[in-house]
Amino acid sequence: MKAVRVHSYGGQPSVDEVAEPKVTGPFDVLVQIGAAGLCRTDLHVIEGQWADIQKPSLPYILGHENAGWVREVGSAVHNVAPGDAVILHPLVTCGLCVACRLGEDSHCENATFPGLNVDGGMADFLLSNARAVVKLDASLQPVQVAALADAGLTAYHAVRKAQPLLTPGAHVVVIGSGGLGHIGVQVLAATTAATITVVDRSVPALELARAIGAHHTVEANDSAESVVRRVQDITGGGAHVVMDFVGEQSTPGQGVAMLRNRGSYYAIGYGAEVRVPTIELVSREINVVGNLVGTYNDLAELMTLTAQGHVTLHTKTYPLEAVNEAIHDLETGKLVGRGILVPGTD
Amino acid sequence: MKAVRVHSYGGQPSVDEVAEPKVTGPFDVLVQIGAAGLCRTDLHVIEGQWADIQKPSLPYILGHENAGWVREVGSAVHNVAPGDAVILHPLVTCGLCVACRLGEDSHCENATFPGLNVDGGMADFLLSNARAVVKLDASLQPVQVAALADAGLTAYHAVRKAQPLLTPGAHVVVIGSGGLGHIGVQVLAATTAATITVVDRSVPALELARAIGAHHTVEANDSAESVVRRVQDITGGGAHVVMDFVGEQSTPGQGVAMLRNRGSYYAIGYGAEVRVPTIELVSREINVVGNLVGTYNDLAELMTLTAQGHVTLHTKTYPLEAVNEAIHDLETGKLVGRGILVPGTD
Amino acid sequence: MKAVRVHSYGGQPSVDEVAEPKVTGPFDVLVQIGAAGLCRTDLHVIEGQWADIQKPSLPYILGHENAGWVREVGSAVHNVAPGDAVILHPLVTCGLCVACRLGEDSHCENATFPGLNVDGGMADFLLSNARAVVKLDASLQPVQVAALADAGLTAYHAVRKAQPLLTPGAHVVVIGSGGLGHIGVQVLAATTAATITVVDRSVPALELARAIGAHHTVEANDSAESVVRRVQDITGGGAHVVMDFVGEQSTPGQGVAMLRNRGSYYAIGYGAEVRVPTIELVSREINVVGNLVGTYNDLAELMTLTAQGHVTLHTKTYPLEAVNEAIHDLETGKLVGRGILVPGTD
Amino acid sequence: MKAVRVHSYGGQPSVDEVAEPKVTGPFDVLVQIGAAGLCRTDLHVIEGQWADIQKPSLPYILGHENAGWVREVGSAVHNVAPGDAVILHPLVTCGLCVACRLGEDSHCENATFPGLNVDGGMADFLLSNARAVVKLDASLQPVQVAALADAGLTAYHAVRKAQPLLTPGAHVVVIGSGGLGHIGVQVLAATTAATITVVDRSVPALELARAIGAHHTVEANDSAESVVRRVQDITGGGAHVVMDFVGEQSTPGQGVAMLRNRGSYYAIGYGAEVRVPTIELVSREINVVGNLVGTYNDLAELMTLTAQGHVTLHTKTYPLEAVNEAIHDLETGKLVGRGILVPGTD
Repeated sequence: MKAVRVHSYGGQPSVDEVAEPKVTGPFDVLVQIGAAGLCRTDLHVIEGQWADIQKPSLPYILGHENAGWVREVGSAVHNVAPGDAVILHPLVTCGLCVACRLGEDSHCENATFPGLNVDGGMADFLLSNARAVVKLDASLQPVQVAALADAGLTAYHAVRKAQPLLTPGAHVVVIGSGGLGHIGVQVLAATTAATITVVDRSVPALELARAIGAHHTVEANDSAESVVRRVQDITGGGAHVVMDFVGEQSTPGQGVAMLRNRGSYYAIGYGAEVRVPTIELVSREINVVGNLVGTYNDLAELMTLTAQGHVTLHTKTYPLEAVNEAIHDLETGKLVGRGILVPGTD
Repeated sequence: MKAVRVHSYGGQPSVDEVAEPKVTGPFDVLVQIGAAGLCRTDLHVIEGQWADIQKPSLPYILGHENAGWVREVGSAVHNVAPGDAVILHPLVTCGLCVACRLGEDSHCENATFPGLNVDGGMADFLLSNARAVVKLDASLQPVQVAALADAGLTAYHAVRKAQPLLTPGAHVVVIGSGGLGHIGVQVLAATTAATITVVDRSVPALELARAIGAHHTVEANDSAESVVRRVQDITGGGAHVVMDFVGEQSTPGQGVAMLRNRGSYYAIGYGAEVRVPTIELVSREINVVGNLVGTYNDLAELMTLTAQGHVTLHTKTYPLEAVNEAIHDLETGKLVGRGILVPGTD
Repeated sequence: MKAVRVHSYGGQPSVDEVAEPKVTGPFDVLVQIGAAGLCRTDLHVIEGQWADIQKPSLPYILGHENAGWVREVGSAVHNVAPGDAVILHPLVTCGLCVACRLGEDSHCENATFPGLNVDGGMADFLLSNARAVVKLDASLQPVQVAALADAGLTAYHAVRKAQPLLTPGAHVVVIGSGGLGHIGVQVLAATTAATITVVDRSVPALELARAIGAHHTVEANDSAESVVRRVQDITGGGAHVVMDFVGEQSTPGQGVAMLRNRGSYYAIGYGAEVRVPTIELVSREINVVGNLVGTYNDLAELMTLTAQGHVTLHTKTYPLEAVNEAIHDLETGKLVGRGILVPGTD
Repeated sequence: MKAVRVHSYGGQPSVDEVAEPKVTGPFDVLVQIGAAGLCRTDLHVIEGQWADIQKPSLPYILGHENAGWVREVGSAVHNVAPGDAVILHPLVTCGLCVACRLGEDSHCENATFPGLNVDGGMADFLLSNARAVVKLDASLQPVQVAALADAGLTAYHAVRKAQPLLTPGAHVVVIGSGGLGHIGVQVLAATTAATITVVDRSVPALELARAIGAHHTVEANDSAESVVRRVQDITGGGAHVVMDFVGEQSTPGQGVAMLRNRGSYYAIGYGAEVRVPTIELVSREINVVGNLVGTYNDLAELMTLTAQGHVTLHTKTYPLEAVNEAIHDLETGKLVGRGILVPGTD
């Protein structure tokens, strides 16, 4: 089969002819890839930023946002059958550790991460397991949803955790309405009656945000103080929830400053540091909440929302062989929306 | 009546003869003080540290940890009657703002804070209202419980919030087993089957902690790293919950470092800053939780625990007139346990 | 002022000239009535069905769904001011009992119930208190919302409690899409991404239900078994949540039979009995949940949803003097939607 | 190996020599049985009451409360290793269905139930899987804990669900302090500061209940009304939570009548019917909660509580070969505490 492999960090990945993976274990699921999302993390992988953290053996196949059709299953698999369209949770989990037993499988102690530490899905086939596959509704095609497997899942998970705080009219502020954030806005609009304020530097991103559910938007090109003040005005004294999809430069500080008393700042994007005096944590009784990807159940729920028509993604498809063109488009900012590699289409 | 008043910041408070307060409004409750706790906050008040924040009109009466007996009530008061022994919530709240309507009255937007911004309880009588008084069980005396009105309430509130995370065998670390922390340990032992590890610099404090429910103790006199390592060993890779009753110097950093993935750091004491890289918040999915005093319901529940015998305080009583002796003992470290002023006893 | 009063049970209420109520207490709020909803409960009151339960002194003023404008407030009222448009919570609560302190004020131990046990709002003015008034958004008029004060509040409260169970795609079944149920459907559609199935005997009610958010509808004119089977098919083996707005005849039995394992039946309407063998409760681990009116916060949130445009009511207005015409229309089925009395309009 | 097998319903089980089970699948775990609990369910199995429900193929091995030591594991098992002492969750679950993915594995759609529908643990060895084994603390022996695998787990699960309602001083009533109930009392005492009232017909059971944590006891030999009245007195107007471990005859009716407004009745034992008028559900806003066995995590937590010394069981051991003597003792009421079969001890 064809597969996009990294041979050495810093170079371009190449499209190689490799052996197809085979079902050997009882929980194995062989998936014919219908679509593999390309994201910034792939660029970082290629540059070698993840080499020491994930330690894959080179060469290996890229692709951590995968969807396709089940082709073959092991003897113990009963949740999917050949022919089923599926999206793949980014982790292949064990089902035995404490986290898995709690339904918190994104913290599985024994997971592999295809595309990061083992072979991923930029290929004709991917060998996964029964715990990673979410069956798609008949209305959904792999190419529509692949990019939700990681970015979308992360946004959904964070919103899902914040929902109990988001009563009708409660104020939620979304910082950064890009790849993750604009999915977050759609999920917020579909599952809550909160008042949504979106903060971003990009005017087109703010326009899109309004179109998909934001009630207020704030251009983030002024000083940090004036942006915070603007949000304080809109929210009548601060937000109940701030979801920071950026997490870089000054956004954590701004995000915490945008909270009302008893409010919660959700860290989703990363890069910068959260710094809060304990006196402020205490006197305002505010919270800082970390958020990591999402669980299998989160992904299943996100697929339901998508089938209901509540979540849509802008995508551009490329044949698998055009992976380096797609990478170039992403690197140079030519790619609007998410790039999706589709095997067998050239 | 006699009352301990601050006339000017930096000086000693004096015991003055002042007019008794009178019931005028329908929700007023006049309480004959049976005991008024003395705490470090009183020293800060006297020094003037709170002058610009609370802005009381001088002279005014000290005392924010108060208990006694109801002497007279307004026409609309039906929850207490003359003769009832009561403890007073530190805030006199409105019952009308959003926070009050949610049962989150410690965030009341219209509260007064007797002893901080209006006349407090170091006096023969205090005028309070029906929303501030918690009736005491017949087994409890004001002198036993007054010091729980603020310090105890704060510890209880934080533990109460953490309880859903504290399943049997879950690891909770208490940093600082002093005035607040040692109540926290007692509440944890009474209301959870969590495994309690106490970290403190004082060997006697650790001995007391063991006697009242701690399963493990760690002397905090070594390097920050080695204290964290010790806790990591005891907790098998990090705590589910860290409750930081200190919040000064290096404890926030240590506290966050003591968490396992998905763990939560509860800030209760204050002084230093919490600093966490967003990548750590995200990749470990950890939380930072602020905690402020407690609600009326929290105080009622704490009184129940106390009546059940689960919470005890070491106290030393002084006549009201000996307030400056008590202050001197507290300042010079001679006061073991909490100092309690008892009007009418000299 | 003019007021609709019951003089004797079984007779017609009359429109009398009575003295205006006066603000005397510090928390009193005098409201000029803009709209008073007429509902079936009023018919029952007139017939005397509530006489022994609520024990009002005759004659007294009807009207328990009230909205209007604040005209005068007592000295301690700071949450509303003269001129504010408000809707009134059906209970006037104390703010001191345990239920009130928890934010569960619909269980206040000391409440009065205007229109049921004290003078209600079918009059030019109603004397209420500061804890009962919810300020309306500028976009809302009393005449639009009065009928939400009781019926709407009850529907909202039940949906609110069920929300944590209503993840995207979870199945909720609404039995009875009449006065309460059709508000329930609107609230479900606005605050969840659950799949909504509505069961009713009336074809027009089902058509309306589809228009306001139902995904599936089931005509309830067949046998109980076939209705249950139909719901089982639609929900893929049973609903996560059943909300029974009828509660009469066979609906409780049907509702419980419609549940999937781990499902919950919410009783809102009443009349019949719920009967479940303990073996079924245990082996299927299902729940039966009672629901009573709603809290002050529920009403505030419902007003927010209404201001957002998520909840609309069909109403027909009558001058206050036309109360007996409105009653006649309601009794004879001529009244489509809710009847609203508007003082000062003839 | 030796095994206690049912050959025909209505007859005595016999101790047969059968082939040892073998590890063949990657998640298989072969357990050398250290102790197998005998319970009333076994009597019902022998009589054939479960034949049509569980449909095992005869002959098959009894025993659904099992503990022992791991002897061999399949290639994919990493959570236990040969030599580990373990207790077995009563169900062998799939890890793939929705319930398993939520951590609600007691509702697994694909579970087997050893001792009920496949070979159980009254034998020298039992073949289980990696998802069923809970490792025991070094302080615990299989013989101490086997009987907690089903009865204890059920009690723990119900208490666990009720905990959020059981704030300090909240009233919980335990109906029936027998095999399950007396574990429930111990778990309540260890994990809450609720006030525990136990209702039972047996004076020795009530004495034991007091010794292990009950604050009040009520002899249930009077009329249903007087028992309810007694509980109403003790609880100051009704319980927040009633846990009915009996569920037969009049206990469901009594249990519901013992609730205060907003209270919850937990059905655990079964036999009778719960009947509640919808008007009572609504006007008192009370709940009826079903409870089924417990999850894997529940069992792990119960083992932690047991290792902490919070839960103890009275047991009487028999060699495996003496199974019919044990059955006779159980049937004739001679067996005080739980009967435990211990293979290899005669």
